[in-house]
Amino acid sequence: MQTTFSDIGLRLAGPSGIQELMDDCGAALTTHPDMRMLGGGQPAAIPQVQQLWRERMRTMLDDGSIDRTLLNYDPPGGNPLFREAFATFLKRECGWNVSSENIAVMPSSQSACFLLFNLLAGQTGSSKRRILFPLLPEYIGYANQSLTDGQFTACLPRIVETAPHEIKYHVDFDRLRITPDIAAMCVSCPTNPTGNVLTQNEFDSLHALADAHGIPLIIDNAYGHPFPGVIHSGFQPKWQPGMIFSISMSKVGLPGVRTAMIVADPHIVKALSNMNAVVSLANGNLGQALLMPLLADDTLIKLGPEVIRPFYRERSDFAKSVLASAFGERVPRALHAQEGAFFLWLWINGLPIHSIAASKSAKSSSSPATTSLTASIRSGGIHTNACASPTRSRSTL
Amino acid sequence: MQTTFSDIGLRLAGPSGIQELMDDCGAALTTHPDMRMLGGGQPAAIPQVQQLWRERMRTMLDDGSIDRTLLNYDPPGGNPLFREAFATFLKRECGWNVSSENIAVMPSSQSACFLLFNLLAGQTGSSKRRILFPLLPEYIGYANQSLTDGQFTACLPRIVETAPHEIKYHVDFDRLRITPDIAAMCVSCPTNPTGNVLTQNEFDSLHALADAHGIPLIIDNAYGHPFPGVIHSGFQPKWQPGMIFSISMSKVGLPGVRTAMIVADPHIVKALSNMNAVVSLANGNLGQALLMPLLADDTLIKLGPEVIRPFYRERSDFAKSVLASAFGERVPRALHAQEGAFFLWLWINGLPIHSIAASKSAKSSSSPATTSLTASIRSGGIHTNACASPTRSRSTL
Repeated sequence: MQTTFSDIGLRLAGPSGIQELMDDCGAALTTHPDMRMLGGGQPAAIPQVQQLWRERMRTMLDDGSIDRTLLNYDPPGGNPLFREAFATFLKRECGWNVSSENIAVMPSSQSACFLLFNLLAGQTGSSKRRILFPLLPEYIGYANQSLTDGQFTACLPRIVETAPHEIKYHVDFDRLRITPDIAAMCVSCPTNPTGNVLTQNEFDSLHALADAHGIPLIIDNAYGHPFPGVIHSGFQPKWQPGMIFSISMSKVGLPGVRTAMIVADPHIVKALSNMNAVVSLANGNLGQALLMPLLADDTLIKLGPEVIRPFYRERSDFAKSVLASAFGERVPRALHAQEGAFFLWLWINGLPIHSIAASKSAKSSSSPATTSLTASIRSGGIHTNACASPTRSRSTL
Repeated sequence: MQTTFSDIGLRLAGPSGIQELMDDCGAALTTHPDMRMLGGGQPAAIPQVQQLWRERMRTMLDDGSIDRTLLNYDPPGGNPLFREAFATFLKRECGWNVSSENIAVMPSSQSACFLLFNLLAGQTGSSKRRILFPLLPEYIGYANQSLTDGQFTACLPRIVETAPHEIKYHVDFDRLRITPDIAAMCVSCPTNPTGNVLTQNEFDSLHALADAHGIPLIIDNAYGHPFPGVIHSGFQPKWQPGMIFSISMSKVGLPGVRTAMIVADPHIVKALSNMNAVVSLANGNLGQALLMPLLADDTLIKLGPEVIRPFYRERSDFAKSVLASAFGERVPRALHAQEGAFFLWLWINGLPIHSIAASKSAKSSSSPATTSLTASIRSGGIHTNACASPTRSRSTL
């Protein structure tokens, strides 16, 4: 049977960068269990973190709470007790002025962003409103999330050489324009895939701009504050009314539970909860049940600086030294400053082939090492002509 | 800050029947743990079923497989090993001619339907295509899932009195018209909320009609075949190419894992997987990991007839006898024939107030019994003027 797909169907169901990346990473991990995985945002198997979740699971089995967790539907905005506990945690550990009315639990930050981008932007009465990404390169998974044409726009970065073979992207405030069609701004911080972290000044300026124009500033903290806290600069963005923060459980070793928390004004929280009922009915319960008792103390807030951040820093340093010794001075290149997240962003100036061709070539090799390198290249983790790509990224948004 | 919502945002983010139902049910269960829950599609706490999942969880902890389950992203269409195992299960236990290419894992049948309805229907080039619900009343959770106006249409049923105080809805093939704008037909079987089960003849006729018009027939088996198998008539719909079947883990006691499987032609499976990458990135892993080893034998296929179906039948008979003795001959009423699912569909002819007013009145009572009755009324499980509602249901679609 030949099936006709709708316009929206064709937008969402075609091949996309994020689908190719997830297909590659997922297939590698499930069908090649010995794969040494470098790619995507797949969290590493960190023994202390895995032990924490195993212990929580065992406790839930022993105290019988696993029964409720598997059996019951929660309200679409999340378990009321978890929302309360999470707000208390954010207030105590981060100093944010929030209550449970500011918390929506969502089935991943990916789906939270899908709902947010389409709640805020797209056709709006007789006008068309857009999400503005003020700093490119940005997360590949946003690129196909708009339900209408021309719903995303972006600003090219200012590129600064910070050391020999090292660059940093900055928001280019000289170029950044908040026109009346802009519905919200969105930055992942640390950025997937460059590892860029906003400076306090950039964050404050984006906030002031958003505030002045009465639009939300969305910060996707999947790799950042308050957990997993993989930020080397010490920057900790502070939620304030009008902002929308997304905090994920995935990068503290729990991508399998598909849970993220949105911190926002109550009318945004209510809108997202209502959308979640229609689109997903309810959230998975396991992630909330695993985290809940840990919100009562500083376990989660210490996990980043004491365990997760040093783990990634050590490997990032190692990869950097391997790259340096392999390339020497022969290859004109730069890495983005190591500021956070799980990525190294490599720019090879004047590489004779396109990054996609380099990825395919690595993938066609049968060695596990190059196959996992492929996933990493595809994800932009190691991207062979990053600095040529902002314009292209822009056109694909 | 006053935030402007987009047109699609307003469609999805407003109050809806399914959101009110899930808010009520979820809040009741999480904040009143002693609530005797009657409402919605919340599965009951059946000791043998809960024991099965507890034992699987303990095994996963003991053999260490819980680590991978929590830690890894699967491909967006589901774990390749699970898809293979599920296809083998369906082939062996149900006699369906399927392979892993026919299986897509989705983060709930709710989200699978959201993606399917918008993949197949809505604006399609210069024409507008619709999902046709051939039998009303239908699941309240579909009502708000369309991203465009006029994307759903439905057909009023033929109502047959099958016994004193008992009715059954039938597809009215004299009214059913497959016009060129129809993109697919969809029936939940057993139907949420009436408990109606298609007859073999109705299923065959719908299939023949869909086939003749080259459109998919979607059957939502959340309460039915192959599990949890709460069908009293013995009917077991057989998947055939061109059809789209949805099978959920929720009603075998696992709504907390948010997992459903779609059985469809490979191009539909691929489209849904790609959409899932964009909207949700990946599925939760726990449900697949819990079910996987049980697919190797007939545990799941026997669970319905031996445990789950008799459990609900007994309670359904009891509720029916309570209603009969409470109403006597004073109240003009009928129940839908007990054919399957977890619902009793009550029609009170000439009730002086609207069903929504009856629901609100019950909810305002502080007794747990009436509060849970409320949830049930709201869900349509006990619906006070069901037979007056098909036209209204139609207008809200």
